[in-house]
Amino acid sequence: MLYLVGLGLSDETDITVKGLEIVKRASRVYLEAYTSILLVDQSVLESYYGRSISIADREMVESNSDEILRDADKEDVAFCVVGDPFGATTHTDLVLRARELGIRVGTVPNASIMSGIGAAGLQLYNFGQTVSMVFFLDNWRPASFYDRIKENRQIGLHTLVLLDIKVKEQSLENMARGRKIYEPPRYMTVGTCASQMLEVEEEKKEGVYGPDSLAIGAARVGGKTEKFVAGTLKELCDADELLGGPLHSLVLLGRRTHELEHDYVREFAVNKENWDRIWKADYEGKH
Amino acid sequence: MLYLVGLGLSDETDITVKGLEIVKRASRVYLEAYTSILLVDQSVLESYYGRSISIADREMVESNSDEILRDADKEDVAFCVVGDPFGATTHTDLVLRARELGIRVGTVPNASIMSGIGAAGLQLYNFGQTVSMVFFLDNWRPASFYDRIKENRQIGLHTLVLLDIKVKEQSLENMARGRKIYEPPRYMTVGTCASQMLEVEEEKKEGVYGPDSLAIGAARVGGKTEKFVAGTLKELCDADELLGGPLHSLVLLGRRTHELEHDYVREFAVNKENWDRIWKADYEGKH
Repeated sequence: MLYLVGLGLSDETDITVKGLEIVKRASRVYLEAYTSILLVDQSVLESYYGRSISIADREMVESNSDEILRDADKEDVAFCVVGDPFGATTHTDLVLRARELGIRVGTVPNASIMSGIGAAGLQLYNFGQTVSMVFFLDNWRPASFYDRIKENRQIGLHTLVLLDIKVKEQSLENMARGRKIYEPPRYMTVGTCASQMLEVEEEKKEGVYGPDSLAIGAARVGGKTEKFVAGTLKELCDADELLGGPLHSLVLLGRRTHELEHDYVREFAVNKENWDRIWKADYEGKH
Repeated sequence: MLYLVGLGLSDETDITVKGLEIVKRASRVYLEAYTSILLVDQSVLESYYGRSISIADREMVESNSDEILRDADKEDVAFCVVGDPFGATTHTDLVLRARELGIRVGTVPNASIMSGIGAAGLQLYNFGQTVSMVFFLDNWRPASFYDRIKENRQIGLHTLVLLDIKVKEQSLENMARGRKIYEPPRYMTVGTCASQMLEVEEEKKEGVYGPDSLAIGAARVGGKTEKFVAGTLKELCDADELLGGPLHSLVLLGRRTHELEHDYVREFAVNKENWDRIWKADYEGKH
């Protein structure tokens, strides 16, 4: 049987008891390590689980899934995913391939950033579709997030923005020369995300949001050092130091807000007076 | 310290290792038991955790939260919540009250139906806001869900519909007479939800959805007997037997679909020919 095991958001103890039992008894254990990461190293997981773990990078999952599925009709294979197993499309692919091969599939759900973000104090009911933000390059600045945020904002909903991570990426030169040399990992910060968002608004000028729009920067959600910083997008451009290390996410507020949300999130505001003023003018009672 | 501990979706082994450690060492353990339930009894949890558990009903959480927070500045109190601790507004309230009292709060995230529903094969990115469906009464048929589904459908997004549960409810007569006698628990089924949805569409006639709209019924998500049934809303009116016992949820599909979603969900269709035909006509390539 193939088990997709969610590992949760933060460290080795976020696995569920059910998931841990499966990992301990499986013939092989894989860790999907390119759509998200835990805040601890592979070696910590290996010693805690008492198992050696094979890292499944994008290449392996997308082009060599039959190796992951080998003998999974006769024995148990654990495919571990940070967060919840169904956060990323890739795993749907793996399940479809398993079905073709007649392999049974079990899922062990866990916390996902899509629900964990509730800890920031916004009601999950008030979120629209989730979007992703990738690192802009000089000649590649994909802005599809903008139209989706626009859709959410038009009906007053919050938007969770998931931030790019670059793990095991090759430079163009190394790729061209076929050298398997990888760049150090990079994790997008809230500051980069906020400034890319403002850049796109400046280009498109549709007024979907602006420097004074309220947002929350989130760091290490679900972990011991979890940190939220609330402020305007402009304030969040400079909040990386307050937030600390990866992983970061950002929530852009919609206007359909609840009083409890104000009270809860205010605690995290960089500048509480600013927060109150803008909330009162642009958010309170606007749904 | 007050710990909000997510229990996940299904049974006693869905708690995380971190959560279990907190429950085992806390001075008092509460279980919030009115916004959702696990598929196992309290006694199973108690024997697995090795702790006795106080049930926190709505009355206690909303009117007597200081009892839950008693001494939490000096000792650890575990407040356990089915799913993820931030699924329901109530817990935000509890955290705000703790803050007022100077009590530190920690959260142990876990799987929520809002991410666990990904196991049905729809991409979580394609979901809009989540709505709730309550049991209709003769003179009380709240239909705010309809406008929210309309907003989601207009931009092509899927809608997760969370279904009412009635736990520890009094009959009007017993309430009037102040008798603390409670009705047996009731859990809304996908069949009831689908027919209430169609009823409201028949009244409002805005064409937000109809008997031929595609949807997925979900039962016991994350559990060993997890079951999905896909079909039209009309087909789902009669799918309760296929789905089996509680808890149920429903997803109404939006038109912004991905080919992988078709392939994945088709497996669950009551009538695959019907599914393919409607998908092709109304969903495929419509975003």
